[in-house]
Amino acid sequence: MAVYTDVSFEELEIFLEAYDIGEAHVFKGIAEGVSNSNYFLQTDKGSYILTLYEKRTEVAELPFFLGLMKHLAAEGLPCPTPVHSKSGAASGALNGRTAAILTFLDGVSLRRPSAEHCIVAGGALANMHLKGANFSLKRENGLGLKGWRGLAADCAADADGVHPGLKQIIDAELAILSAQWPVTLPKGIIHADFFPDNVLFVDKRVSGIIDFYFACYDSLAYDLAVTLNAWCFESDGAYNITKGQALIAGYQQVRPFSPAERVAFPLLCRGAAIRFLLTRLYDWVNRSPEALVKLKDPREFVRRLRFHQSVQSPEAYGF
Amino acid sequence: MAVYTDVSFEELEIFLEAYDIGEAHVFKGIAEGVSNSNYFLQTDKGSYILTLYEKRTEVAELPFFLGLMKHLAAEGLPCPTPVHSKSGAASGALNGRTAAILTFLDGVSLRRPSAEHCIVAGGALANMHLKGANFSLKRENGLGLKGWRGLAADCAADADGVHPGLKQIIDAELAILSAQWPVTLPKGIIHADFFPDNVLFVDKRVSGIIDFYFACYDSLAYDLAVTLNAWCFESDGAYNITKGQALIAGYQQVRPFSPAERVAFPLLCRGAAIRFLLTRLYDWVNRSPEALVKLKDPREFVRRLRFHQSVQSPEAYGF
Repeated sequence: MAVYTDVSFEELEIFLEAYDIGEAHVFKGIAEGVSNSNYFLQTDKGSYILTLYEKRTEVAELPFFLGLMKHLAAEGLPCPTPVHSKSGAASGALNGRTAAILTFLDGVSLRRPSAEHCIVAGGALANMHLKGANFSLKRENGLGLKGWRGLAADCAADADGVHPGLKQIIDAELAILSAQWPVTLPKGIIHADFFPDNVLFVDKRVSGIIDFYFACYDSLAYDLAVTLNAWCFESDGAYNITKGQALIAGYQQVRPFSPAERVAFPLLCRGAAIRFLLTRLYDWVNRSPEALVKLKDPREFVRRLRFHQSVQSPEAYGF
Repeated sequence: MAVYTDVSFEELEIFLEAYDIGEAHVFKGIAEGVSNSNYFLQTDKGSYILTLYEKRTEVAELPFFLGLMKHLAAEGLPCPTPVHSKSGAASGALNGRTAAILTFLDGVSLRRPSAEHCIVAGGALANMHLKGANFSLKRENGLGLKGWRGLAADCAADADGVHPGLKQIIDAELAILSAQWPVTLPKGIIHADFFPDNVLFVDKRVSGIIDFYFACYDSLAYDLAVTLNAWCFESDGAYNITKGQALIAGYQQVRPFSPAERVAFPLLCRGAAIRFLLTRLYDWVNRSPEALVKLKDPREFVRRLRFHQSVQSPEAYGF
């Protein structure tokens, strides 16, 4: 939630010479995204987001991310579209960073989405899964089982300081997931971070899906498990089955689960919980005292994981 | 440059019920202003800035600041206008802070304004001085001589650690300013922080003057001295007389200086340099390791002060 790389208006003007989007009238750094610098840009031709990519990994994979957004937008999904330069480039260089201009989407993200919002969010996720089917590039999920094991090893020494017994909780869970993780479910492009922050609404309609920088090729049902972890729990950690039913129903109206996906769902939810538990834990134990980012509490996902561990069948989620 | 107080869309929606500005379609925290939290807000009726005031002092003086902006906007100056609630209030309460909605102004602030920009900036400042004449409220300049002495005392122990000999430089300068500071120059409403950040341009036209939270009742010529310190020096500390002449000429086209103002100008420039030297020094020596704000270097104003001390007559500035 910060602007890491400073861009002056004069620097912007030079950068914009390569584009055909008119003159800048508004240019403001915005508190959005965790790892990139983002600016709101308004010209006489429209509204845009200028993103400067701060991490090397993301830059190497920009062809995938930008290509995916272009593909999905062309398929009619409300997601940012990269604006190409006059010479056809989807990104350029600005102040030592790789930078891209994307179309700006109206809409607001919700802190406490209702069950009604969950229905349409589920539908939007399923829609993304269908529209991503013809996208030609692949990207492995860097935050799958292998990634989780790496994060767990990195955090092993500090885990119990964050939550008593956490190292043991993680190790035991990873052992189960390693033994049982389903690998034959239908795969495709998943968003992998479909949190309420990344879904924009105008009234009760999804007006935008943003932040595709975790998108990858993985089990589609896992994406719904991530989404359920993000949308359907109360702040005290309790599962809200009304929202869960709504999310699942909204999803299945567009793309019904196969029996195998349904059976695997509780385990997928455990995996999704451990994924966010581990990345939050990693950020927590490696935080810098000068960090500009407000960290999220890993313990929220300890509580979610505990719920998923107690689940006996998919019906408990509202299937 | 940060958002200190978090506001969810749901909290915004409740706050907006008291206003008649339509439904929010865009709501984003922006990196603007040093001490407040600012959000860009777009509704079906227009674009706005939502500001949450973080400092108690500012809240106590909001009637002055918001009243002044309303007055100047009514006089035709391009400055944000507070939007009143349905019940007529210029501010309200939001997440434990006092908050106000102001109209949003198009335009961009420049990092390296040209002499052409300095002419129109000078004219805009003089125009503000004329239009402020009928404003009925007064506010003392908290960062005048008395304020400088307080800051100097607070920083005395740490000054030399920032720049060798700085304590002595400050003490000697304050002795001279205390003895010679002019008190009979024409007074009125001054902006007191008319830096390039706070002046928005569309093409070569001033489209907005923002951030009135240092505005006060003081010598008008001092405001031009502050502005010259902010607009007319190179990054290596050299005075750019072309820009200085442009700024002064632009100002005097609208409001010519009296002979007394002209004679006092070099001393006013010294005062303006010490004012920003001291506030930056104070922030520097009192910085928190967790600060979200990128601090400005106080030594820039040591170099400016040294230039002003070497000036023999107002002609050296371009009068």
